[in-house]
Amino acid sequence: MAVLFACLGAGRAHAEDGHDLWLRYHALTTAPAGIDTRQAVQLVAGPGSPTAKAASGELIRGLGGLLGKAPELSGAVSRDGALIVGTPASSPVVAGLHLDTRELGREGYLIKSVVVNGHTATAIVGNDDIGVLYGSFRFLRLLQTGHPATGLDLRDRPQVKLRVLDHWDNLDGSVERGYAGASIWDWWKLPDYLDPRYTDYARANASIGINGTVLNNVNADPLVLTPAYLKKVAALAGVFRPWGIRVYLSARFSAPIEIGGLKTADPLDPAVRKWWRDKADEIYRVIPDFGGFLVKANSEGQPGPQDYHRTHADGANMLADALAPHGGIVMWRAFVYSEHDLDDRTKQAYNEFKPLDGQFRDNVLLQVKNGPLDFQPREPFSPLFGAMPKTPLMMEFQITKEYLGFATHLVYLGPMWEEVLRADTYAKGKGSTVAKVVDGQLDGHALTGIAGVANIGTDRDWSGSVFDQANWYAFGRLAWDPTQSARAIADDWARMTFAPDDAVAKPIVGMMMASREAAVDYMTPLGLAHLMGAGHHYGPAPWDDSLPRADWNPVYYHRADKNGIGFDRTRKGSDAVDQYAPPVAAEFNNLKSTPDAYLLWFHHLPWDYRMRSGHTLWDALVMHYTHGVDEVKQMRATWATLDGRVDAQRYAQTAAFLAIQQHEAQWWRDASIAYWQSLNHLPLPAGYAPPAHTLEYYKSLSFHYPPGH
Amino acid sequence: MAVLFACLGAGRAHAEDGHDLWLRYHALTTAPAGIDTRQAVQLVAGPGSPTAKAASGELIRGLGGLLGKAPELSGAVSRDGALIVGTPASSPVVAGLHLDTRELGREGYLIKSVVVNGHTATAIVGNDDIGVLYGSFRFLRLLQTGHPATGLDLRDRPQVKLRVLDHWDNLDGSVERGYAGASIWDWWKLPDYLDPRYTDYARANASIGINGTVLNNVNADPLVLTPAYLKKVAALAGVFRPWGIRVYLSARFSAPIEIGGLKTADPLDPAVRKWWRDKADEIYRVIPDFGGFLVKANSEGQPGPQDYHRTHADGANMLADALAPHGGIVMWRAFVYSEHDLDDRTKQAYNEFKPLDGQFRDNVLLQVKNGPLDFQPREPFSPLFGAMPKTPLMMEFQITKEYLGFATHLVYLGPMWEEVLRADTYAKGKGSTVAKVVDGQLDGHALTGIAGVANIGTDRDWSGSVFDQANWYAFGRLAWDPTQSARAIADDWARMTFAPDDAVAKPIVGMMMASREAAVDYMTPLGLAHLMGAGHHYGPAPWDDSLPRADWNPVYYHRADKNGIGFDRTRKGSDAVDQYAPPVAAEFNNLKSTPDAYLLWFHHLPWDYRMRSGHTLWDALVMHYTHGVDEVKQMRATWATLDGRVDAQRYAQTAAFLAIQQHEAQWWRDASIAYWQSLNHLPLPAGYAPPAHTLEYYKSLSFHYPPGH
Repeated sequence: MAVLFACLGAGRAHAEDGHDLWLRYHALTTAPAGIDTRQAVQLVAGPGSPTAKAASGELIRGLGGLLGKAPELSGAVSRDGALIVGTPASSPVVAGLHLDTRELGREGYLIKSVVVNGHTATAIVGNDDIGVLYGSFRFLRLLQTGHPATGLDLRDRPQVKLRVLDHWDNLDGSVERGYAGASIWDWWKLPDYLDPRYTDYARANASIGINGTVLNNVNADPLVLTPAYLKKVAALAGVFRPWGIRVYLSARFSAPIEIGGLKTADPLDPAVRKWWRDKADEIYRVIPDFGGFLVKANSEGQPGPQDYHRTHADGANMLADALAPHGGIVMWRAFVYSEHDLDDRTKQAYNEFKPLDGQFRDNVLLQVKNGPLDFQPREPFSPLFGAMPKTPLMMEFQITKEYLGFATHLVYLGPMWEEVLRADTYAKGKGSTVAKVVDGQLDGHALTGIAGVANIGTDRDWSGSVFDQANWYAFGRLAWDPTQSARAIADDWARMTFAPDDAVAKPIVGMMMASREAAVDYMTPLGLAHLMGAGHHYGPAPWDDSLPRADWNPVYYHRADKNGIGFDRTRKGSDAVDQYAPPVAAEFNNLKSTPDAYLLWFHHLPWDYRMRSGHTLWDALVMHYTHGVDEVKQMRATWATLDGRVDAQRYAQTAAFLAIQQHEAQWWRDASIAYWQSLNHLPLPAGYAPPAHTLEYYKSLSFHYPPGH
Repeated sequence: MAVLFACLGAGRAHAEDGHDLWLRYHALTTAPAGIDTRQAVQLVAGPGSPTAKAASGELIRGLGGLLGKAPELSGAVSRDGALIVGTPASSPVVAGLHLDTRELGREGYLIKSVVVNGHTATAIVGNDDIGVLYGSFRFLRLLQTGHPATGLDLRDRPQVKLRVLDHWDNLDGSVERGYAGASIWDWWKLPDYLDPRYTDYARANASIGINGTVLNNVNADPLVLTPAYLKKVAALAGVFRPWGIRVYLSARFSAPIEIGGLKTADPLDPAVRKWWRDKADEIYRVIPDFGGFLVKANSEGQPGPQDYHRTHADGANMLADALAPHGGIVMWRAFVYSEHDLDDRTKQAYNEFKPLDGQFRDNVLLQVKNGPLDFQPREPFSPLFGAMPKTPLMMEFQITKEYLGFATHLVYLGPMWEEVLRADTYAKGKGSTVAKVVDGQLDGHALTGIAGVANIGTDRDWSGSVFDQANWYAFGRLAWDPTQSARAIADDWARMTFAPDDAVAKPIVGMMMASREAAVDYMTPLGLAHLMGAGHHYGPAPWDDSLPRADWNPVYYHRADKNGIGFDRTRKGSDAVDQYAPPVAAEFNNLKSTPDAYLLWFHHLPWDYRMRSGHTLWDALVMHYTHGVDEVKQMRATWATLDGRVDAQRYAQTAAFLAIQQHEAQWWRDASIAYWQSLNHLPLPAGYAPPAHTLEYYKSLSFHYPPGH
């Protein structure tokens, strides 16, 4: 009893602050069917590598928490309820099982119920230790989500090779578009002090299969490539290595000038090429498994090969040549648009890169944002997917919610990413999904990747809110297997993060699954995009025409006037549609076949255009805005029913954030409607409330120190 | 058993990350003499005010942790081992004890062993609920430090009225001279979201008697005085109020221009005076117990009354008049020095303010840094203490270690503050200590205060390291009673923070007590000062002469050349000595009576000056530098003996930081010696190692993104 109280005391002090993410391992109050403490009582695992130790350690920690008793270590199966963990090569016990592991490849695993020496046991087996670690996390997930642990015969392996977080973290500790506090990298104290948080970070990533991390912002500081910083990077790489995570760096293209003392960064200049080769050699001397470089070049003011009248391929290949001897790769970003190109901005990345297909080295991936614009609440898939069969295209998702309400809006991004991954490019006929482009199936690439712009910071809950953790989680799960369902992932997350209990998980999953469409509706319904405040990207500003470049301004994107609204990207307009394969181009070019979700993305329409629903476009717009707000109200109501079913601290945080979200959803709706009305002078449909304030009021709002900016 | 394991699992996840500070309440492994669980089994406390609830809640939490069982609530004493908690006015049970509480005043408390209805009990009683809260924390401290809890008869009350933390936190989330992460105030999410951290902060402060907090940097952003920010401030004040903590704000003197739209901030201008009155009224409408303003004026570029040819008194009094109707006060900083005044910088605050004694309103305190320069490792006390009998002088200590190694040096500041507080001003004869000036005894002031520049940030351990927490703790304890001993405070802290066990606490206290003199020795021995790197204040740069103002440069302070070193502040020099009372002036003016610790602060001496020890000044300097480094080595050795006696996480952090400290102590020693040798060309005394590198090497070092700058 004394222990219990001491324990409650400590528990209260730390409460449920979200730091444990989906790895809480709280005691299962009701044992899942088919498992009790007698079924994980013995752990048969050799000492092995640091990765093998990590796997055993995680099982001890996880089972100790979930089942109330950690398994005892044993050299052999000597009782019922053993866990046999390892690779055939390193464990005679595993080898003795004679399991077929050929299909597991690298990083894969199997989990199988077996009988050894007459005792029931569960084997967690991979061809390499990292596969065993992934299998161990998977076994724990089964228990965490309330699945039975008997009769198991499960095999899995990643469908994508590089599953990478991109940190937009600056060396000064700030995080561009970060809404979860400061950078978790304490560069000042590295390499001397290794914050335990680094290990927690690696564990969390390993649990969802993430195997790479780009430590620094794509708007890169060249200092990170200097010897002093490489020592710090090496220290982090050392922490991450046992967890199967490689370190990458964003490389500033002009680094040979800034830290190398050269006069040029021309990728065809021999001195420049030598500088990068020497730099790569230097990096690999301190980080033998260094992953490679991520590069943002000739984009938004960053230097690049075009400064020397060279192509993106020239630039990427130079870096690729420097890294190739060491097995490193280059992730070259396709997010480019020129201030001199007056063509539709959404067309520019395609125009720039499609002609370069086939010109990149084998160790270059082109990293393409999911849509052709910039992480908007909804965009059609980028037309580059399917258009460059000779080049591995790496997907770039944004986990941090730059355009989706920062930390305080509950917006689960699983459905958005699923929508993109399942979109059909028709590049090689029906069924040529974006997922098949990305995972290499469609064009036969072995080098494949998915990157997510991290939403991680020093906030105790890592991501700025408990629900934002779900986006980190879903990213990892989808990077592992892009065909997974966003709903199934949400369900796993909710059970692991809150409780493996339908009464808790089901309402939470319901909120999550509705949340992204709600955000689209209250921010940018019916294919609208890029209507947020300038610079900080906070709140609505569809009226904004103040920025020096046309394609930075909301009015560029909505093109609304008294007659109509929308961007004509059909053949009569910018003809962006013809960047897609013919069946897709035909669908989007035709007003009648264009889905409502992309209507104003591809078409400029009169306000009184009659929708399939029978409503005018204007009435439909107002209804969508209002529906978005109503959905948030519904989310709040659902959450209120969970008071007492989830712990007080996470309940209160979410309740407070949902209140903020409702207020801001209303603001988005009202400010947008007020602005459109100032153009079209149309009345609201019957029963729809007018904006709470005047347009002048909304225009007058200004914001101090918005985060992430 | 299941509970135990689940509990260990959770415990490991959170480990000992320092977040609980000195309020860990871990189970006492051996019960202190005179207490067992039967002596705190019943809590007799009314529901009462939020503050009364906080007191009861803390006892339940604390005793639940320490004794393994929380006391049961009861309306009356019905068994042995009751705690009777409350005020005579609010609790009939307390009133029935007929205790004499007259001497307790406000905020005071008594703790007394009593017998009620034939049952043994402990009474924790104050005249107000905050006194009861302080008493509850004191009772818990007795247990935490291993003291018996029988036969108690203890009374205490604060000796200083305002015990205030000054946060140099900016509204953008950065912290000037902060080495513990970002600001803990999440201004963006306030007032809608109240981070539980705010409550933790208030609890920690209440536990050591701190009763005020200045939320924003003295280099103040006027935005904090706008309605939007005042709502945020009010939300924080609401969290802090039950814990007895009032909120104050740093006010920018030119706010009437910047946010008021006025053309002037002249303190005698009627419109300006009205603006501040209206602003005060507005503040008190939303924060009825607002504490007042802290002002840095006409100092380091900040605006102030001298911009309008008015005095500091004119400026302070205008603000005081605006606040007076509401009971607010002004803390006006004396940290001023002019770029036009060529006199010894350490003399300028005295020159400026002494003539104003008697000119300030009753609700103005003059806030004076401990020394006449700027928070150096050692300075003599500021001559303003004792020199302005008609003005309450508030002490300003710096808890954050701007000049003392940032977060990673173990430097316990208790001895430094004790040294200052016990220094004798002789203002009214022998025994006129600085403490008696500050606590109002000497000159009969009722309004008294001590401020500490906070070392608090978003780092999980609050202060950047576990040992830096001791400085926050010691500040609170000394602010409550400036006559307390630094060693006794360290002993309490070590027992509460690590274990109430001599084998752990004694070596830790030993390290702490030696640490400040070690830092003085390896940085600025024998009265040297201000020899750190420019701007960021990191590391040694005694050679630096690069800053535009003479008195920003190290060479201004040490005045070393081939013949000698030191700043002549005697009557033959700047005559700073005569700012002190005659007996002190005589002591410092006379080379023979000047303590070694202040030797080069007051005297310029030849390198071959013969010290009392018999060594030449040069040899003594080298010995002091070396001794400082040796002391750090000794601290590391002592800490190594505690491996296994303190938890792994805090052990490892401290071990890593001590390694950094040793490296940097060596760097300070070597760089300093290399520079002095470049001037005096003297050999090192026998047996003393030469610097590891050349002076050019030390001069060549540069630092990127130092924290706090």
